[in-house]
Amino acid sequence: MKKLRIDHIAIAVNNVEEALKNYQKALNIDHIEIEVVQNEKVRVAMLDLEDTRIELMEPISEESPIKKFLVERGEGIHHLAITADNIEKDAARATENGMKMIGTLRTGSFGRKITFIHPKSMNGVLTEFCESSK
Amino acid sequence: MKKLRIDHIAIAVNNVEEALKNYQKALNIDHIEIEVVQNEKVRVAMLDLEDTRIELMEPISEESPIKKFLVERGEGIHHLAITADNIEKDAARATENGMKMIGTLRTGSFGRKITFIHPKSMNGVLTEFCESSK
Repeated sequence: MKKLRIDHIAIAVNNVEEALKNYQKALNIDHIEIEVVQNEKVRVAMLDLEDTRIELMEPISEESPIKKFLVERGEGIHHLAITADNIEKDAARATENGMKMIGTLRTGSFGRKITFIHPKSMNGVLTEFCESSK
Repeated sequence: MKKLRIDHIAIAVNNVEEALKNYQKALNIDHIEIEVVQNEKVRVAMLDLEDTRIELMEPISEESPIKKFLVERGEGIHHLAITADNIEKDAARATENGMKMIGTLRTGSFGRKITFIHPKSMNGVLTEFCESSK
């Protein structure tokens, strides 16, 4: 049975440039991509570590779910993303096992299919399944 | 410059057995280790993914910092652990760069040296540096 991978750890921040400075001070990170994800109304910086990535997300709209998160809880980890080799199958398995899903498959950053498991089914952790980029 | 790795993602839970059931339902995980970490007053289950690990932590004492976290915030991600090849050097670099550290080097689970960067220096994310196990 193939093990799943952590695709990225997403952190909600007020200002992506300021957050980048902190993460670069603490970690050995040089490669950075910034993208505006209109679907989610965020600007993201993807920090490549050896094995996985940290995604810093800044809302660009008052309607962004990230904005709501920041207002309610402040900066911090927003979700954990798991790479699904077969996202339809992995999402179906989670549903069959009684996990509460949020919405349907949709397109996230870098054009990949994504879906979410509700934090209530994952001990408080909003969990994303995302299509493998390979 | 060698990139750092995510060693584990630690999640505070009320009951480690119940949490394990959820994570096994959602993810393809079979290998599990459980350990009592007396220093931190927690029981932990380490879930091996392909690239990194998820640590489910249940407090075993009212004095555990995890107990305090659960009372204040409920279940959820508690900290992010980064593997340091040279923990003294990586911690020193973070300190020189103005990061606020929590405590000094100490022994965490599985006998490895650990130290923490305060969430205020990392946009709300409690960040652990831990010694590489290799």
